[in-house]
Formats: sequence, C-alpha cells, structure tokens
Amino acid sequence: MATDEKPLRADAERNRRRVLDAAQALFGERGLDVGVGEIAQRAGVGRGTLFRNFPTKEHLIAAIVVERMNEAIARGRELLAADDPGVALYDFLEDTVGRQQADRALFEAVEETFLANPGIRAAHAEVIEVLDALLERAQRAGAVRTDVGAVDVLMLLKGVCQAATAFSHIDPGIAARQLDLVHAALTPPSGNAQALRGRAPTLNDIERAFEVDETLGAAAELG
Amino acid sequence: MATDEKPLRADAERNRRRVLDAAQALFGERGLDVGVGEIAQRAGVGRGTLFRNFPTKEHLIAAIVVERMNEAIARGRELLAADDPGVALYDFLEDTVGRQQADRALFEAVEETFLANPGIRAAHAEVIEVLDALLERAQRAGAVRTDVGAVDVLMLLKGVCQAATAFSHIDPGIAARQLDLVHAALTPPSGNAQALRGRAPTLNDIERAFEVDETLGAAAELG
Repeated sequence: MATDEKPLRADAERNRRRVLDAAQALFGERGLDVGVGEIAQRAGVGRGTLFRNFPTKEHLIAAIVVERMNEAIARGRELLAADDPGVALYDFLEDTVGRQQADRALFEAVEETFLANPGIRAAHAEVIEVLDALLERAQRAGAVRTDVGAVDVLMLLKGVCQAATAFSHIDPGIAARQLDLVHAALTPPSGNAQALRGRAPTLNDIERAFEVDETLGAAAELG
Repeated sequence: MATDEKPLRADAERNRRRVLDAAQALFGERGLDVGVGEIAQRAGVGRGTLFRNFPTKEHLIAAIVVERMNEAIARGRELLAADDPGVALYDFLEDTVGRQQADRALFEAVEETFLANPGIRAAHAEVIEVLDALLERAQRAGAVRTDVGAVDVLMLLKGVCQAATAFSHIDPGIAARQLDLVHAALTPPSGNAQALRGRAPTLNDIERAFEVDETLGAAAELG
C-alpha cells in the first residue's frame, strides 16, 4: 500500500499544480471572471478534480495568494543574509508592495475574508515573522528606530499599497514616493524627538481585530 | 414677491436643518439602518419635505459628511492663526483623524461614491486647500520637510484612519501612534537623507484617479 500511495500523491500534486498554473494564466489574461470550467479545460483536468482541490473559485484565488505570500517570505529569508541590514529591510518592503501591486486583483478578491482563510492566516503570520527578523536586524545596525514593531511597519505598508492602487492609472510612481516617506518615518529620530505614543501592536492584535470585525460583520448581516 | 421669498427660504432651511439634526441623532443612537420615515417623524416634518431635501438616504448621509468636513475646514482655518505652525499642522491632522474616527460609519457609507457627490467633492478640495496652507506655513517655519505636498500627507492620513478603524476595538491608541510615525515621516531629514522619489500628487490627480476608478467600476458592471 505505502509504495502505491506515493505516485498517487505525486499525481494529485501535479494536478493541483496544473490547476493553479492554468488559473494564474487565465486570471492574468482575462481577469478574475474566468469560469472554473475553462480553468479545468486549460489545466487538462476534469471539473471533479478541480473541485476536489478547490471547492470554490475563492479557494483557488486564496491558494494563489498564499503562493504569492510564500514567494515574498522566501525573498525575505534571502534578504536576512544580505550585507546591509537597512538596505535589506527596505528591499523587502519595496518587494512586498511590488508583489501586492502586480497581483492586486487577487489580493482585493480575498480582502474581506483575508485571515478567515487558514492558509492565508498562516502565511500572514510568517510574513510578520520574517519582517520582524529583518526589522530587528536593521534596528541592531542602527538603521531603523528601535521603538517600532513589525505590525507598525505592516500598517504603514498597507497605506502605501492603497495609495498605489488608487493612483495606479495616474501615477505609478506613487508607491515609491510613499515608501520613501515610510523610510523617513522609520529612520532613527534625532535626539530631541519624542518617542511614539502607545505600544507596538502585535500579530495577536491583528488576529483579534480581524475576529472582532468578522463578528460585527456577522451581527450586522443578522440584524 | 421678493419679500415673500425670504421667510419661505428661511423655513425651508429650518426644515432641512431639523432633518439633518434628527438624522444625526438617530444614526448616533441606532446606526445607519434607521429608516427615513422615522427620521422625518423625529424631525417633525412630512416625508415629502424630507425627500425634497434628500432624495435618498445616501444624500442625507453625504450632507452630514459635508457638515463634518466643513467643521474640519473651519478648525483648519482657525489653526492658520496659531502661534506655532508645526504644532498647528499636527493639531489639524490629529483633529481630522479624530473626526473621521468619531463618525467612521458615516464616512464608510459614502466611501464608494465619495468624490462623485458634488458637495463632498467641493469640501474635499477645501480640506486640501487648508491643509496645503497649514503645510506651507509649517514648511516655511522649518518644522516640516519641503518636498511633500498636501496630497502626500492626505494619503498618509488615510492609512492612519484605516489602521485606527481596523484596531478601534482592540487598541484605540493606534491612531496616535501612527500619527507619530507620520510626524516622523514629515520631519525635515538630516543632511545625508535622499529626497522623495517622483513628484507630489495634486488634487487634480486625486480627482482623475477617482474618475478612472468610476469608469472602471462602471465598465466592470456592464461587462
């Protein structure tokens, strides 16, 4: 039995990969309205195979988003070995915003349910983990103020992504400009500057905020 | 005729005021789901009078948002006379975020159609005008870097409002903390810092971006 299972799993994995590749190609060509039937056809698998892997198109989109997040995480881990910790951190921020912009239709499609998806939630925690490591390294090198945390930075990045999305047709340079302002915000302040008010928010805070939002959303739908 | 019109207009204005006051009170007590019939009743006007002034509840909500924006603009104009131009600017930013947070349900309700409403569009232009004046004054005083414009600052503020909204149930202090980071971003950089990339976006850019978004939205609905 055990020897039979391996090729089966490899087969299943290959089919899953084919569906993901076909979906990414078709979404890229024609947007997210492409039907799942067409995706199955392009992938060369039956609709049953597609549905077994991805019960809804939202599951499929979420799986692609997780792949994109994993690429960002991998890039972040590489950058942990870069020579200049400050440059490495800003490379990661720029890279992350660039990826989000390149696939913003996908990210927008999962925005409402973002952390409700277990795969996205796990990848999100890993993004914060690698950002935290890059940030600490940059802080130890004196390149970044010591009173900010990874979630502070992530909030600033979210603003950058939104500004970039709103202006993408008018001025594609807006993300770079807002990132420069984030850079300035994170630069160690001069002697007489005040410390940030409050405490650095944590991953746990984000997850709780998301759960509260979900609860309120559900209550609003019932009410 | 001319002498008859004046009391009529005053009457109409009084009714409009009553409807706005009743709507604000009821929205505050029970949220935006309150029906217009109940608002007319509380205001002591007929439904016809309400509909003549506000054809839909969205018009009513937009009118309240415009009032809130006008209050922010008035506060900004006052602050133009304050002694310390840097403190005045940050007071305005903190005040603006505070107002948006206090009435975030109203602002969220008009978010999608924001600049499509002529009243909101005019108030929005005035907000940028007063922010621009406060910013220039702070820049002349050396309190703020000279390579940012009002729209750059507004984009940063939008990020602060979103972070504050997402965390309002978990950590109400998040807005203050993110505002401190905005403060740091706007502080004149030390000698060896790089200038911001690109050019400062303008009011015209925002209005064009909004129109492009509207067009894309309309195309998506048709397609």
